[in-house]
Amino acid sequence: MSIALIITDRDVQPLRQSIEAELQGATPVWIYPDIPKPEWVEMAVVWKHPPNVLQAFPYLELVSSLGAGVEHILNDATLPPGLGITRIVDESLSTSMRNYVLMAVLNIHKQLRFYLDNQRAMRWEKPARIEVPLRIGMLGLGALGGSIAASLAALGFGVLGYSQSPKDIPGVRCLHAGDTTIAGFVRQVNLLVCLLPRTADTESILNYKVFRHMPKGSFLINVARGAHLNEDDLLKAIEKGYIQEAWLDVFSEEPLPEKHPFWQYPGIIITPHIASITNQENAAKIVAENYRRWKEGRELLFEVDREKGY
Amino acid sequence: MSIALIITDRDVQPLRQSIEAELQGATPVWIYPDIPKPEWVEMAVVWKHPPNVLQAFPYLELVSSLGAGVEHILNDATLPPGLGITRIVDESLSTSMRNYVLMAVLNIHKQLRFYLDNQRAMRWEKPARIEVPLRIGMLGLGALGGSIAASLAALGFGVLGYSQSPKDIPGVRCLHAGDTTIAGFVRQVNLLVCLLPRTADTESILNYKVFRHMPKGSFLINVARGAHLNEDDLLKAIEKGYIQEAWLDVFSEEPLPEKHPFWQYPGIIITPHIASITNQENAAKIVAENYRRWKEGRELLFEVDREKGY
Repeated sequence: MSIALIITDRDVQPLRQSIEAELQGATPVWIYPDIPKPEWVEMAVVWKHPPNVLQAFPYLELVSSLGAGVEHILNDATLPPGLGITRIVDESLSTSMRNYVLMAVLNIHKQLRFYLDNQRAMRWEKPARIEVPLRIGMLGLGALGGSIAASLAALGFGVLGYSQSPKDIPGVRCLHAGDTTIAGFVRQVNLLVCLLPRTADTESILNYKVFRHMPKGSFLINVARGAHLNEDDLLKAIEKGYIQEAWLDVFSEEPLPEKHPFWQYPGIIITPHIASITNQENAAKIVAENYRRWKEGRELLFEVDREKGY
Repeated sequence: MSIALIITDRDVQPLRQSIEAELQGATPVWIYPDIPKPEWVEMAVVWKHPPNVLQAFPYLELVSSLGAGVEHILNDATLPPGLGITRIVDESLSTSMRNYVLMAVLNIHKQLRFYLDNQRAMRWEKPARIEVPLRIGMLGLGALGGSIAASLAALGFGVLGYSQSPKDIPGVRCLHAGDTTIAGFVRQVNLLVCLLPRTADTESILNYKVFRHMPKGSFLINVARGAHLNEDDLLKAIEKGYIQEAWLDVFSEEPLPEKHPFWQYPGIIITPHIASITNQENAAKIVAENYRRWKEGRELLFEVDREKGY
């Protein structure tokens, strides 16, 4: 019996070795497309897997996402109904995401791009206002969004949060869908951070109808999913002055296509989906533990609720 | 009787108004060089004042630095011996300095410059190692260095500190001059942050003899004083590979001269002395309070010990 890794965007040899070691070498781990015996595969660890690929495994019972997001699994129309679905919630992933958001917030607050541009022009200039006053709005207060909102508040930033259901986070003014609309929320902030899960409800949630309620000259950080952002609407919001700077780590198509207008658009900062990346050693521990639990009929770690979508 | 503001590198009208308001309009505040009656001046608030300028005020009794540093006052050979000397220790100054250091540390850790360069070349590339492992060495564990070291440790970074006398800071391994030399200290870190006070002992402390004990490919952040750094030695340390990136906010000559090699030197990031700047409203409160205390013969806030130099 074996585990298949269906992950084609990075080298997962370290993940394979760590899972095999965790399971004392008793269970072979194969890397797609090199799967010698598809009928042996009981568990698949996947990240944006090719369409229909799961149908090749007649005895598959458990699928784990390699990250916190599972929409690539739930959106697979050929997904067998009875499968157990789990995800990886990794503390180093949360630290690494927090560090990215904090970096972007501080770069905006301290106006680093102004100085980098000035250095290229060999210009020494202190701006009239040394720090940009920020009111940060966190969209999504789950495991990642909630803890990052708390970290920003602990550093002294004013933080508001918005989520579907009510939350209580130290130092953060938490609003939810029962209190106000998203337009009512973004009106109160000038820096919007998106850390929502991807569900049918949150797709294209970052759109012009939302941006036009923000104060002129606002900022955006999207580290959740490319599908949360309507990319044309962002360009319109920048042209109309609602957004002055957007930090984007995720895109509707990745790698970002060569002809995409974002590459050279003033005010857009592009990073190649590196805000947070699952640590393969930590991931291996969770995968191996869930494989054992499933074999023994015990409760799984980080099991996904198909209805909720996370 | 009046107060003179001898500060020529920024607009200090807000400071003047705030001090006058704090003192209920009873004491005129004049801005150098527009001092109608020099013989009325009892207190001067100074920042890098022109040579000999204090001699114009025969009844001067109290001098306050506009910032935390006082070397510009103590280095004035014409300073009358009996003057009271104070400085401004402002909490917003410490927050603003912490934000700069945190920004620089996170930019280094996350390799932001790599992505900014790639974006200009329209290149999507994930580096093999997403985060640079850092062992941070804090030189100077005073009011600023100590609290910034604690903040970095609280965010999960490994932090060592070095100071003249023993210190105890939560989460920080504190070494002092009795434990090891500065060479012995820098050998243990790959990112050096300088937050020392400027004294005769700390001048040129960042020099090649120190840099060559650091691991190859190390990082430097100098937010203290330009005089701490031997600028030629930094270029040598970069050429020899000891330092790969230096964030500099302070320079031996400011503004940084147009012909200075730093402007276009690969691996050097220049910001124009903006890491931290005294908030004029907070400064006004401390200046007014010290003026009142001096008038009433009470103990001064943040009085400087001429022997220690801070």
